[in-house]
Amino acid sequence: MVPTKDVIVGIDMGGTSLRALVVNPQNEILAVEKTPTNVAQKPDGLIRDLAALVEDVVRAAGLRKSHLRAVSIGAPGAVDPERGVVYHAPNLGWDAVPLSAKLGKLLRVPVFAENDVNVGVVGEHALGAGQGAQELVGIFVGTGIGGGIISKGQLYLGVRGAAAEVGHMIVKVDGPLCGCGNHGCIEALASRTAMERDVRAAIRAGRKSSVLKIMAERGKERMTSSIIQRALKKNDPVMRNVMKRAQYYLGILVANVVNMLDPECVVIGGGIAERLGEYYVAPVRKTAYANFLRRHDAEKVKIVSGTLGDNAGPLGAVVLARKRLRK
Amino acid sequence: MVPTKDVIVGIDMGGTSLRALVVNPQNEILAVEKTPTNVAQKPDGLIRDLAALVEDVVRAAGLRKSHLRAVSIGAPGAVDPERGVVYHAPNLGWDAVPLSAKLGKLLRVPVFAENDVNVGVVGEHALGAGQGAQELVGIFVGTGIGGGIISKGQLYLGVRGAAAEVGHMIVKVDGPLCGCGNHGCIEALASRTAMERDVRAAIRAGRKSSVLKIMAERGKERMTSSIIQRALKKNDPVMRNVMKRAQYYLGILVANVVNMLDPECVVIGGGIAERLGEYYVAPVRKTAYANFLRRHDAEKVKIVSGTLGDNAGPLGAVVLARKRLRK
Repeated sequence: MVPTKDVIVGIDMGGTSLRALVVNPQNEILAVEKTPTNVAQKPDGLIRDLAALVEDVVRAAGLRKSHLRAVSIGAPGAVDPERGVVYHAPNLGWDAVPLSAKLGKLLRVPVFAENDVNVGVVGEHALGAGQGAQELVGIFVGTGIGGGIISKGQLYLGVRGAAAEVGHMIVKVDGPLCGCGNHGCIEALASRTAMERDVRAAIRAGRKSSVLKIMAERGKERMTSSIIQRALKKNDPVMRNVMKRAQYYLGILVANVVNMLDPECVVIGGGIAERLGEYYVAPVRKTAYANFLRRHDAEKVKIVSGTLGDNAGPLGAVVLARKRLRK
Repeated sequence: MVPTKDVIVGIDMGGTSLRALVVNPQNEILAVEKTPTNVAQKPDGLIRDLAALVEDVVRAAGLRKSHLRAVSIGAPGAVDPERGVVYHAPNLGWDAVPLSAKLGKLLRVPVFAENDVNVGVVGEHALGAGQGAQELVGIFVGTGIGGGIISKGQLYLGVRGAAAEVGHMIVKVDGPLCGCGNHGCIEALASRTAMERDVRAAIRAGRKSSVLKIMAERGKERMTSSIIQRALKKNDPVMRNVMKRAQYYLGILVANVVNMLDPECVVIGGGIAERLGEYYVAPVRKTAYANFLRRHDAEKVKIVSGTLGDNAGPLGAVVLARKRLRK
């Protein structure tokens, strides 16, 4: 029997790990594989790692490479999706790497690439919390804050491909310095990085907190989502305050986005939303609704946490690949 | 000869005056008429005034009512364009007025209605500063700040018809109170109303300024665009400071809008932009470019003042009417 070439591998290329799923045409996940991201090597080395990961995950699904229709990758940076070039990915140390061409040559299947947040939003839209919405905005909160826009059911990229940079919308003029060099961006107020900065500042100012102790116990140098969750469970007063303020700022961002685009749905994704769910999203929603210009039918705009977790990106990459293969 | 029914009357329904243009299929303006808005009367009275204005302006163009194909109105409030109902127009004291149905009955031609800022943006897009752009945002600065979005060449309304409320995007969390009840909206920072508040506060605080004198000389109770222009020409230090700050805030708003939508063009309209042109827009553009996340090709996003002035709204209304007649 000739095998049907119908599975697609979706990959999330993170700065810490590479994560690959094999997905069948029914959007069922047949296998998952993960490997650390070795960013010390040159791009070609990392691309060879990707090729090996694809072969591993296909094998883990009990399939052969001849079953593989395409590979689709979410990359952490500025991507030209038409040419599959990753232009600027500081976490990987990449600049202008022709990912699709190089990996396609190794694997001999079509390889697609898109920004990692965009594929995450496509995933939540196609298969997760935003199913059925024609107009949707996704906001992913992690070490930074990224976003994606679905308009008329399609990923909206903007004229330069620079749309949906919600993390750099300024909600506090002359506010704290952001990694981008500007001041008062939401990323500098409500990302995990901003929250860690505020927790450390409060502790330095003499406030009592167990956060650093929890980090030490778990051998973590950064305030991860799991540490935030633990500190909140222990009712840590500094963590609670910082979280409350971050939720308030994020609610203002959501209101700004809705006052601008009036979408059906805002999906809040990323590690914190995933772990804390409604505990995290409910106060964000409350602040957002209160700051809509049009409030009488505010609840027509759904504000929900993502449901696909780490799979949002790889699944969205697969969905995008299918659209591109059909063209 | 049977007259061809090919002219459309476009109307801007302001709180102060009603302004009507007769426009031919080549988008040439054949006549203009204006009449004060008598808001003391009930909606039916104002609708009769609109009917009389339409008849006047058609006559002024040397035409007869039999030449009139349709009437299209920009109304200052929340409009349901499908049904031609004006839901909430505080400046007129209107709520849920079936404008299209009532005026259509008096004139016996199709009557269309849309929000006044939306028609202004359509006008600048179709015939003014934004011609040819597929993705465009219009920002109109006056007593308030309103906006409109063109996406894929079409007016974008959002799911509830509440999109493009750029005036209520919050750029300064916990900033000054806005008319909408929230704090720190751009309207509370950079509108003419906000600028007047800041000028008066500076004068009360003892700063020397000629603004109140200019207002008294001209018999104005409000700081209109012409008074702003006069004070700037006289190099009034309070006016200059307040203007500089307003331009800075507006630049931040433009950056937020671009970081979100990455359009080809941002058109800044309204009385101040119209009177001051590049003097007003240049510092706004500079701040905006500096606050784009993606700065290396910032100048691909044009930031320009509107070119149609008071005609933007009525012309845009005519353009929209033609589209709806074609459906």
